[in-house]
Parts: sequence; structure tokens; C-alpha cells
Amino acid sequence: MCSIASDSTATLLVSCPDQRGIVARIANFIDSNGGNIIHTDQHVDAEESLFLTRVEWQLDRFNLPQELIDPAFGAISRPLEAQWQLHFSNMRPKIAIWVSKQNHCLLDLLWRHQAGELPGEIKLIVSNHPNLQGISQQFNIDYHHIPITKETKAFQELKQISLLEEYDIDLVVLAKYMQVLSADNLPNFPAVINIHHSFLPAFPAAKPYHRAHARVVIVSGATAHYFTEILDEGPIIEQDVSRVSHRDTVPDLIRKGKDLERIVLARAVRSHLQHRVISYGNRTVVFD
Amino acid sequence: MCSIASDSTATLLVSCPDQRGIVARIANFIDSNGGNIIHTDQHVDAEESLFLTRVEWQLDRFNLPQELIDPAFGAISRPLEAQWQLHFSNMRPKIAIWVSKQNHCLLDLLWRHQAGELPGEIKLIVSNHPNLQGISQQFNIDYHHIPITKETKAFQELKQISLLEEYDIDLVVLAKYMQVLSADNLPNFPAVINIHHSFLPAFPAAKPYHRAHARVVIVSGATAHYFTEILDEGPIIEQDVSRVSHRDTVPDLIRKGKDLERIVLARAVRSHLQHRVISYGNRTVVFD
Amino acid sequence: MCSIASDSTATLLVSCPDQRGIVARIANFIDSNGGNIIHTDQHVDAEESLFLTRVEWQLDRFNLPQELIDPAFGAISRPLEAQWQLHFSNMRPKIAIWVSKQNHCLLDLLWRHQAGELPGEIKLIVSNHPNLQGISQQFNIDYHHIPITKETKAFQELKQISLLEEYDIDLVVLAKYMQVLSADNLPNFPAVINIHHSFLPAFPAAKPYHRAHARVVIVSGATAHYFTEILDEGPIIEQDVSRVSHRDTVPDLIRKGKDLERIVLARAVRSHLQHRVISYGNRTVVFD
Amino acid sequence: MCSIASDSTATLLVSCPDQRGIVARIANFIDSNGGNIIHTDQHVDAEESLFLTRVEWQLDRFNLPQELIDPAFGAISRPLEAQWQLHFSNMRPKIAIWVSKQNHCLLDLLWRHQAGELPGEIKLIVSNHPNLQGISQQFNIDYHHIPITKETKAFQELKQISLLEEYDIDLVVLAKYMQVLSADNLPNFPAVINIHHSFLPAFPAAKPYHRAHARVVIVSGATAHYFTEILDEGPIIEQDVSRVSHRDTVPDLIRKGKDLERIVLARAVRSHLQHRVISYGNRTVVFD
Repeated sequence: MCSIASDSTATLLVSCPDQRGIVARIANFIDSNGGNIIHTDQHVDAEESLFLTRVEWQLDRFNLPQELIDPAFGAISRPLEAQWQLHFSNMRPKIAIWVSKQNHCLLDLLWRHQAGELPGEIKLIVSNHPNLQGISQQFNIDYHHIPITKETKAFQELKQISLLEEYDIDLVVLAKYMQVLSADNLPNFPAVINIHHSFLPAFPAAKPYHRAHARVVIVSGATAHYFTEILDEGPIIEQDVSRVSHRDTVPDLIRKGKDLERIVLARAVRSHLQHRVISYGNRTVVFD
Repeated sequence: MCSIASDSTATLLVSCPDQRGIVARIANFIDSNGGNIIHTDQHVDAEESLFLTRVEWQLDRFNLPQELIDPAFGAISRPLEAQWQLHFSNMRPKIAIWVSKQNHCLLDLLWRHQAGELPGEIKLIVSNHPNLQGISQQFNIDYHHIPITKETKAFQELKQISLLEEYDIDLVVLAKYMQVLSADNLPNFPAVINIHHSFLPAFPAAKPYHRAHARVVIVSGATAHYFTEILDEGPIIEQDVSRVSHRDTVPDLIRKGKDLERIVLARAVRSHLQHRVISYGNRTVVFD
Repeated sequence: MCSIASDSTATLLVSCPDQRGIVARIANFIDSNGGNIIHTDQHVDAEESLFLTRVEWQLDRFNLPQELIDPAFGAISRPLEAQWQLHFSNMRPKIAIWVSKQNHCLLDLLWRHQAGELPGEIKLIVSNHPNLQGISQQFNIDYHHIPITKETKAFQELKQISLLEEYDIDLVVLAKYMQVLSADNLPNFPAVINIHHSFLPAFPAAKPYHRAHARVVIVSGATAHYFTEILDEGPIIEQDVSRVSHRDTVPDLIRKGKDLERIVLARAVRSHLQHRVISYGNRTVVFD
Repeated sequence: MCSIASDSTATLLVSCPDQRGIVARIANFIDSNGGNIIHTDQHVDAEESLFLTRVEWQLDRFNLPQELIDPAFGAISRPLEAQWQLHFSNMRPKIAIWVSKQNHCLLDLLWRHQAGELPGEIKLIVSNHPNLQGISQQFNIDYHHIPITKETKAFQELKQISLLEEYDIDLVVLAKYMQVLSADNLPNFPAVINIHHSFLPAFPAAKPYHRAHARVVIVSGATAHYFTEILDEGPIIEQDVSRVSHRDTVPDLIRKGKDLERIVLARAVRSHLQHRVISYGNRTVVFD
């Protein structure tokens, strides 16, 4: 059970076929129950005739007990044919981080967690290598080394999934995890965010820096996206670029790429944890 | 009289003391009169306890005649102690551009106007110099040459104001107008947007490029802001920067600055014309 | 014949197999003939073992007559197995602009030309449509309308080539020319710079905005490159990006794209005209 | 004594009154002694008539012993009235980091050091607070807690200076050290790089985020500069900005500011350690 701090909020993410009166209906639901809306934003995808909205309100003085909000909203949303998520700021999402050998994204997320920048709890680190165990100890977070080979992959992923259940994980962050999750097991994962080492859709797959270097681009990028069964094709949450030049060697591109990866992944994770992202098909809406 | 095209919209910009139920009350006003909300965004300035919102809805099938919307909303807004603006997409704002001798911002605005990027009508160019008259002829826009000296300034500004009235101007854009409008006459102007040749609040006032060059900054900027009686202190609508280096001479800084000025001024004018800006005190909210 | 203004300069662009003593040999050639070096920059492509340099010096008080510099440098460069270009600031390159119906890049280049930003002379506009003839008249530049169909293309390109000869053109700028130059005729063109409406290598070929919109990227770009026989694969001279969001419709992406195209193309043309670009294979070095 | 690895290089940073023949003279000095130049760049500050250059060459097969290069170059440079620095890549600069309570810049520098991004050795951390001692232990670097009060400042700085001598420090990095070094003691410090929490010259001195928030800028920045006796006026080495909006609270501005500070400080330190920066007056040249 969670007590309602005076600044606790609820957030609704709703998508439904576009139709008249949605904004009023949702606002009335909150207002008539005594909620004070502190953020509302909406978007209409005209091609898909899809209405998407994010509404956040203060739970203080809200008449409905927290556990009844979801069923109560169901009565509103059914005639709208809506899909929705309901999140509470006093229930912080539990995060697992998947890594291999590179430490830059992991360290960055741990520092930000420690600095209070990420509204969630990092509970678990899983790696197919033992290398980053020392870092987990510094930050006092459980580390599970689950080696992967072609032969053991399907089986080892079942171990991962049972860890996800054991730790009650809401979000998996692939922070330079150099294995592709099996499409078969993916439905048993919660939301999964991946960081891709290039500006998608340019340079999908491996060795983007070497290929960028051979092509001499002027701008290099990184992309954070939800992981889906189609590799490097999941909905993009965040991306950014930095300028490169003929002076940049492959190690320079890698160094600049690591800076981008840290920043882009952290922003995407933060947006997700703040419940500002709705994905549909291979698209996203990221409310500001 | 203006007919209501099927895609005409109304936009409300509202600011009022923060209080419960505002979102629902505004949404209900629109919904109960048959309007379909296509954009809503809001912001709370916590320090000022000020609620600010932008709501846009389709006029097609809206029950209230256009001329009755404002008084009808007045009944809603009075108890909220709200300030509001109501705009209609079928009533395009009339724009005047003030220039001196430099043509880059003027040309850029005229091209964008011609390309349909600016939802308004450029009706009038006023200059204290005759130099840019040729451009006005190419684009078939009235040009008034009103020379200014210290002695004649107050008097000549009255001429400017009577032109504003004659052309029924809603927005004055100072597109490199190298005169400061008199504080006395400013209240007789409509909204005025100015482009400042530096990254405010660094380098206010004159010769910013020379001073930036002497200081060797790495990043150079431009700022668009509402013109107020306090020079270079009006609410900022848009700013941007570009990277400079020791290789950049003062002419290079000026060239880069002109590119920034064109882009920054055009974005600010566009945001204003789309009714996405609320200013209060020396601050703004620019809804996305 | 051209007189040597006191601030005229010569610029050498040299590439050769990397070897000891190149810098000293070139510097001595200039110094021993009384030249004052005002810019020197170099780059070694380690993978290709290729040395590339740009050296610029004042012609004032240089002992060699301008027409003898090239043969004199030949004696230096032969043992180095070098390829080189020699340019003089008092011989401004002659530019032709190829357009179709869109005017934004053309207008931008003409305006910069007029503002003195481009060290060259725009002599000729060629288009497969008559639409932009009015602009050519405003700027007093010859306009040749050469319509292209599948059947007439090969023949009409011969007309284009004879215009290039007639006007003695050094650089062709494809400023949104929506035709692909035939590989057969390309060897008869001088240097050709193209602007591509996306961030290459993402989204080559047609309709990049629609595809970017479908994929919902967060960053949109434009790329200027030398045109070669392999479409959209020529050496990149400049590229840049701007941030986009779910709010941006296809027209918004096109508008932002046009801003990028103007800026990116103008920068690339300027770098080329300042003799700061060496291309080799599908790569470039752009000296700052 | 240091052995010359086959890839060791020497770097000369030279500034002198602009005059003919400098490039050739320096190139000949290196070439005639058997050095292979791998990087040369130059700049002329036309206002100051000052020539500045950076030349780097391979020590492998260079005829002069390392310890004789400086006196030998002295013979060249005296008639040029030059100031110069000579650096060897096999003699890595020793770095001290000054901190107070904030850890983000310290952690970032330590992580980059560990990742091999910084060509130098972090030998020492000095702080006026004990808070970050745990981090120093994780990275196995000496930590000296030297508390500062108004009364003890002058005396405690002497302790700092004796640590600088003991550890033979070449560079002090003020990585959010919230004390101003006394002008009196500054001459006893080696090069000092400071990170300033705003886009200088806007918002010098304290609380820039609060003031930026009050002013509602659209772009927020950070600046790395050499620390000099005039506070926040030393030569700027690097700066960068990020976009902010009305949605950003003061904590958001601080979070974005920390990201900028990490990146900007790391870039400045790296440029300095690669001997790519010459400062003169309150200006710098940062060679690419």
C-alpha cells in the first residue's frame, strides 16, 4: 500500500480513434472527482485518425482511491475504444539494465540515478560477461552474469525472464547489450529500450563507425528506440547527432559516439519513466 | 464578413491564476457548443501561480457564430479572473515590416510569405531609408520612406502610427530597423517583434560582433523578442546559436549572424502568427 | 590578363603519397620565390597513406609571374607523384545554377552572391522548366529553358554542355534540379555540386520526407555532395540536421528541409569556391 | 629518461610577430633534422599582426636528441621574437582536479581518463570538502581535503601549491571548485582550466540558472576557460549550449547544465592536453 504524498500525481496516456469531445470527457472525469490537472497535451495523427493524449493531475484531494481509478476510467474509455495506461508518481518503475563489456552507458545511468535524475529504481544488472560486476558493487546493485552462446541463448533468456519476474521489473534498458533478444521470448519482457550506435535509419546493424568513416559523413548520430522483433526498426524515442570531420579517426568517432549514446539513452529512459511516450506501430509520440 | 471554410479554427490563449477545474471548464465550453478540439496545451508557472493554456478547435459545426464566441467566453473567464485572446484562422493577421538598409531579414520574410510559410498578410514596409524600395516593388508591397533624425523622430513616429491604423496592422516586425521606437509612442503600436544581433542577455546594445570577436566566444547567437520600453529586455520568443572559431573574422561573424537572424526572426514571427506565444512580464510561453 | 591586386592570393591544393619533407618542400618553393604564406593546413589519410594539403600565399611581391607558377610547381610535384590544383583569388570561378521549379536554393544563392558572400560569378541559370525565369530577370542573369523528356534527355544535355563551354563555367550547382545527369555526359561537366533532401546515407532517392515521417525520426537532415555517376553516393561536402517531432506534418518537414537545404548548399558552394575542398574516391577533406 | 616509442611525436606551439618565411623556417628546422611532419596548422591574428602555429612531427628517425630540441629551436626562434612551447607525446602531462561537493565533472573526467580519452595522468584530487573522497578511492587516486575559510584561505592555498610541486602537476582542472583562487597565489599555479556554469559572457558570477530561468532564455550554455586573475574573464577554450523551454524548472536547467558542463570541460581539457590551445591576452586559438 502506498500513502499519497501531497505532491503525488496520476498520469493517463490515452490513444483512441479521433472523435469529438474526448478532451472534455477526460477533463470532466478528473475534475468531477476533484483532481487538479497540472499537465495536458494531445496530438492527432491525421493519417491514422488517432487521438493521443497525456493528462497528469494531483492525487491530493482526489475523491477516488488510487486502486479504483483504473476501473473507473474504463467506464469512460470503453465507448471511446481507447487504449490507455495509468501511472502513479508514488509507484516508481523498477528498472533492469542489460550490459555486455562497455561501461559508459551503465555508469551514466547509475550516476543519474544517484543524482535523482531518473524517476525510477534501478534494481538489477544483467550481463553476458562478468566485466562490469565491480561497478555494480560500487553502486550496490545486484549483478547477474548470464553467459550466452548460440546454443544456450534460448535457455539463458528464460533465466533472464525469471529474474525480471523475481525483481518485478517494469523496464529493461539495453545499455550496450551486444546480443539480440530472441523474438520468441520478447513477449515475456516488459518495455525494452535499446541504444543504437548510429543515426537510424542510416547505418543499421554492425560497425557503423567504420562505415561512417569510409563514407566520410559530416554528422554522426545515436538513436534510442523501443526494442521490437524487427532489429533496429522499433519506434524511435530520441536521437541526436554531433559534427565530425576528416580529422576524426575511427577511435574519435567511437569516442564521440559514446558521448552521444550516453546522452541519448538517458533522455529516452527519462522520457519513458516520466510517462511521456506513447508508441503505436513503429511510431512514437513523445510529449514535451 | 468571413465565411467559415471547413478547416477554419479558433484559438484561445488564456492566462489566469492557477485553480482547479480550468481545463474542464474550457473544454466543456467548446465541447458543449459542438467544437472539435484539435490542439490543447497548458503550462503552470509555479512561481507566479499562473495557469496558461492554448486551445484550438474546428469552427465547422460549432454552434456559436464567430462574433459571439468572445462575449460567450467572457462569461466563463470572468470568474477565473482570466486574460485571453481569441483568434480565427480565417482572419489572417496583417503585418508591417520596419527596415533600414539591410535586406536579409526582409527578403527572407517576403520569400517565406510567398512560399506560404507565414499565416498572415504582409501589407506594408516602412523604412527610414529609401534603399530597399526596389525589393518592395518586386513583391508588390507598399513601401513608405519615413526618414528619422533626432529632431524629427517623435513627429515621424506619429506618421508611422497613422500608417499602422490606415493599414489596420496587427503585427510590426522590426527586421533590422536600426532605430529605437520611442517609449512614448510604443503604446500606440500593436505587438512588435524585434531581432537582436546577439545571444541575449550577452552583448546587449551595439556592435556585438566586434565585441564577440574581441572576446573570442566559441558560440554566437541571435535573439527574437517582443519589443518593450526597456531596450533589449523584452520577452524572448526564439533564439539560436552557431559555432564560431578563431578563423572567423568580423565579416564572417556578420555573415553567420545574418543566417541566424533570418532563421530566428522567421521562427518567432511564425510562432506569433500561429498564436502559440503568450508573454507576461518579461517572460514568454511558446507552445509547441 | 589580370593585374595583381595587393591582396591577391594563390592557393595550392595538393594530394600525394605520404612521404617525408613535403611540407618543407612546398613552403620553400613559396618562400624562396618571395611569397608570404597566410594559410596552411594538412591532413594525412592514414589508411590510404595519402598526404593532402592546402597552402595559400600572397601574390604581392611574389617573384614568379602568375602564368609560370603552375609549370614551376610541376617541377616540385613530379617527384612527389602529386596531384594538384592551383587557384588565384583574382580569377573568380564562373558558376551555373541548374534548377527545376523550386526557388528556395536559387534565391538563397543569388542573394548571397549579391551580398558578396560567394567568391565567384553566377553567369547562367539553366532549367528544364520556365517557372523561375522571372527571378533570373530580377537578378539580371541569363536563363536558358531546356525542357527534358526521356526521349530528348541525351540530346538536351549536349545543349547544356555547349552552354557550359560558351559561358566558360567552372562549377555547376544543382539547386533542386530534379533530373539526374546522364553518366555518359557527366565527364563533359566541370565540378558539379548537388543538394540532397535528406541526411545521407539515410533516405537516399525520392520522397525522403514522407519516409522520414512514416518512420518518425527525431532529427532530419540535408546533404551537399559532388555529383558523380553513382546517384547520391558522391563525396559529401557538407550536411546538417534539425530537430523534428511528432507535431511536424509532411509540409513542416518540407519547410524545415528547405531551410536546411539553403544553408547546407550555400556552405558547400562557399567551401568549394574558397578552394577548401579536396575530394578523392568517395571522400572529401574540407579544410577549415 | 624516456625512450622514444616509434610513434612518439613532438609538438611546437609558436606565436610571433607576423613576418615572411616563418612556415618555411620551421618546416626546414624539422625536415633538415629528419622529422616527418604529421600535422601543421597556422593562424594569423590580423589585428594583432600575430602569427600562431602548431606543428607536430614524428620523433622516430629525428636526428636531435629530445633534450636538445628546445635549445636548437631557440636559435631559430630568437630572430623571430617568438614565444614557444615544446611538448612530447611520451611525456604525459600530470593533472590535478580541484572539486567541492558536486561530483559530475569529477566522475566524468575520471571515467574518460580510465577509458583512455585523456592524454595525461590524473595524479591528485584536492577538495575543500571531504564528500568526494569515496570516489577517489574507487579510482585509486590521492585525495587531499584542504578546508577553506575566509581566514585560512591564503594559508591553505600555500598547502595546495606545495602539493602541486610535490606531485609535479602540469594542469589544474577546477571541476566545480566553488572557491576563487587568490590572485596573489595564482602565479604559482600551472595552467588552470575552469568550468563556468553559463554561456559567458552572459550570466557571469553566481546563480546563473535562477537568473536564466527568470529571464526565460531559449538557449542555455556552459563555458570552459583558463582561469586568470579577472574572474570569469579568462580566455575561453570551449563552450556549448542546449535548448531550454518554459517547461524547464530550475532543477531541469541544473540537470541540463550538468550535462553541458561535463561535455564542455572534457573537451577543453582534452584540447589542452593535446597541445592544441594557444592563449594570448584574453583570447585563444584552438587548433582543430
